Amino acid sequence: MSNVTKGSYSIILRMEISQGISFFEIASKINETGGDIIAVDMISASKDSNVRDVTVNVFDETHQERLVKCIADDPGVRLVNVSDQTFLLHLGGKIETKLKVPVKNRDDLSRVYTPGVARVCMAIHEDPSKAYSLTIKRNTVAVISDGTAVLGLGNIGPYGAMPVMEGKAMLFKEMADLDSFPICLDTTDTEEIIRIIKAIAPAFGGINLEDIASPRCFEIEERLKKELDIPVFHDDQHGTAVVMLAGLINALKIVGKRMEDLRIVFSGIGAAGVACTKILLSAGVQSKNIVGVTRAGAINRNETYENPIYNWYAELTNPEIKTGTLSDVIHGADVFIGLSGPGVLKVEDLKNMAKDPIVFAMANPTPEISPEEAAPYVKVMATGRSDYPNQINNVLCFPGIFRGALDCRATMINEEMKIAAANAIASIIGEDELNEQYIIPSVFNSKVVESVRHHVIQAAIDTGAARRIPRDTQ
Amino acid sequence: MSNVTKGSYSIILRMEISQGISFFEIASKINETGGDIIAVDMISASKDSNVRDVTVNVFDETHQERLVKCIADDPGVRLVNVSDQTFLLHLGGKIETKLKVPVKNRDDLSRVYTPGVARVCMAIHEDPSKAYSLTIKRNTVAVISDGTAVLGLGNIGPYGAMPVMEGKAMLFKEMADLDSFPICLDTTDTEEIIRIIKAIAPAFGGINLEDIASPRCFEIEERLKKELDIPVFHDDQHGTAVVMLAGLINALKIVGKRMEDLRIVFSGIGAAGVACTKILLSAGVQSKNIVGVTRAGAINRNETYENPIYNWYAELTNPEIKTGTLSDVIHGADVFIGLSGPGVLKVEDLKNMAKDPIVFAMANPTPEISPEEAAPYVKVMATGRSDYPNQINNVLCFPGIFRGALDCRATMINEEMKIAAANAIASIIGEDELNEQYIIPSVFNSKVVESVRHHVIQAAIDTGAARRIPRDTQ
Repeated sequence: MSNVTKGSYSIILRMEISQGISFFEIASKINETGGDIIAVDMISASKDSNVRDVTVNVFDETHQERLVKCIADDPGVRLVNVSDQTFLLHLGGKIETKLKVPVKNRDDLSRVYTPGVARVCMAIHEDPSKAYSLTIKRNTVAVISDGTAVLGLGNIGPYGAMPVMEGKAMLFKEMADLDSFPICLDTTDTEEIIRIIKAIAPAFGGINLEDIASPRCFEIEERLKKELDIPVFHDDQHGTAVVMLAGLINALKIVGKRMEDLRIVFSGIGAAGVACTKILLSAGVQSKNIVGVTRAGAINRNETYENPIYNWYAELTNPEIKTGTLSDVIHGADVFIGLSGPGVLKVEDLKNMAKDPIVFAMANPTPEISPEEAAPYVKVMATGRSDYPNQINNVLCFPGIFRGALDCRATMINEEMKIAAANAIASIIGEDELNEQYIIPSVFNSKVVESVRHHVIQAAIDTGAARRIPRDTQ
Repeated sequence: MSNVTKGSYSIILRMEISQGISFFEIASKINETGGDIIAVDMISASKDSNVRDVTVNVFDETHQERLVKCIADDPGVRLVNVSDQTFLLHLGGKIETKLKVPVKNRDDLSRVYTPGVARVCMAIHEDPSKAYSLTIKRNTVAVISDGTAVLGLGNIGPYGAMPVMEGKAMLFKEMADLDSFPICLDTTDTEEIIRIIKAIAPAFGGINLEDIASPRCFEIEERLKKELDIPVFHDDQHGTAVVMLAGLINALKIVGKRMEDLRIVFSGIGAAGVACTKILLSAGVQSKNIVGVTRAGAINRNETYENPIYNWYAELTNPEIKTGTLSDVIHGADVFIGLSGPGVLKVEDLKNMAKDPIVFAMANPTPEISPEEAAPYVKVMATGRSDYPNQINNVLCFPGIFRGALDCRATMINEEMKIAAANAIASIIGEDELNEQYIIPSVFNSKVVESVRHHVIQAAIDTGAARRIPRDTQ
């Protein structure tokens, strides 16, 4: 549950304070528990008491409980209500439908609905490719999850997953002006998920798969890529891989090494670990220089694994058949890519890496090693967190890659388009700006989406995945 | 195809007119073909010619072709372009996503997405009923079709059906402020459709089924009603039935008859015909007084039918075992309900009905008998068309009935709620306003949705279908 409570947030305490008590006393108490007062609003006052709304930043739920108890226990204060801004913001959901044209009178109605709409329907029926021009398809992405691997929370089901998918739909709109709708599936059957997504595809120009457990996610994505003619993209895999590659491209500029020469150790061979491995191979890393490590140790071809993905990984990598723990195999590695759990990487391991170690410790919310601990021993470090430099955040990838894919009516998002996206993200940081603390642009850098879009469209055209050349690319 | 081209619409002709030609000549030509000039815009002028955009109302596609040919053949005019306003309006689809809260900075992001969203997800995971307060569920309706019975166009598939479903989503928003998303299924398998809709249900507070062919639509709706805990409503059946009943309630006030005494002949026993029959039975009509007629004649229990619905209908109705054509069985009927095809009802049939005949000729776009022909022989007439009085239009029902159902978090839309909706629609027309030409309010009557909502909520509470009593109902 620790990941549930991570990240500070603000709560509003409505309190009735007896006239004898000064607000300063209350403020001091809040301060003593570590609460940071953001705002104070006087709601009402009488001769006996004042009612105030006090907005306080807290660290986590434990902190909130402690703070609330401390105020509730004060005999001079009656705690009227505690509201949580994050929850308030979610009331009624985070997205809505908007009409692109008004329906105010009979004339409007006859065009957007019967009888006028019939001519539009028949035009599409006669030429289904017209769905791209005459329906929402060309600008609409489905965000689909089965709720089995939501954030770090695990299998919390389709209802629990909805707030994440709504958030994702918001980001598609805000970052790339793509319309998006969240669909959470009340099934975990691989075949059924495939059938459902194929059946609901007509409305959409692309499918963003999200938070589906491994190894099911591989089969679902692979099959849909084959069986649908629109892009299907499992963001947990490829979004992470693209942004990681962008960071690594820039990190290599700093340490002066080449992809071809890198020795890389992976910790965590789940959906994202596999995708990161694949994209690095496409980018020039040699499979013989890769070793993957799981809880059971280094993956190697002398072993047989229950998880079919591990067997595939063993065949592909680690020809020297290294065995043992992460600490055993990290000797001489240039790069550590972590997508596993907190604290698995030790300072001692860093000391055993090659010169100028690159460490991407992306476990969320707690990295494989804390940046503070690692700092003296690494050259370049990245994490999944926003409160340290170099955040590997999917938000840098998915809006732009889908914007590009939809604008050229791509049939798929292929390896070339992903690598183009990574290069686009890396290229945002100029040679003069680049340094150990700045290998990845901010998710709010306004140049990212347009750059990714442009590079992705070009790659789609070059590889024959584009069905249309956008005007600004011609 | 005649139904595709029905209903006038406007086109814009961009024409370059040589200086020697007066615009009046062109306008006369347009006028002679029956085109109605709505607007003329001067786009550019040179010493040789003028370019004008001329907006013209046309009747149908044949008319458009004739008009275009006539202009194109004029040697003094170069026809630059013809644009169709209905198609222009559909470019890129008719709905989009809108954010309810902004995502402009890191702080916003941390609340609507990770890490803040995790606490919201866990709250729902621990208590799934919180999906109603913390996700879009409480205000969102899915509009779902398989594209097999779209308008009068038949099985035009999921791509062709999208513009209708988008239009429906617009009406939900415009009329009842409900968010709605169109889903067109690329499958016609009953079991698969049921499974898909069950699986995608978590995001939605209600399911509006649309334009699904009979008899499959009955099975799909019945099963989903049993297996889901949110309202499932096949609008083609029940929307039509509710509005028809509303009209009939008011028509009976005019002719001074009671439901219990009515003899009714149905023409057309498809999805809507069955639903209209059922709601009339719930409203007090006696099954012994109903006769249903199909192309094969009056449905009766001496026959065995391939369509299982007809066998069910035969058992339920027509105990006198009337046989023969519509003309044979309409003798003495008080009410004709038509949901069949153009021209099946003759003037002679009207003359054979009981005193003060009520004729609901709802075949679209061409009624069972034209209102002009029928006028001398009927007391009250309604059609499905907007260009005659008394339009039976589903738009009067579905926004309000879903608004009510979602506001009380109804588990279903039951018969009582439908009848409440019909009474609500009927009650909009005051005793002083009611007359033969005005038994049904306009779809743009602003009182309809609130009245339907209110009556439906009350019925849901009374029948135990409500999970929440809205504040304004308490």
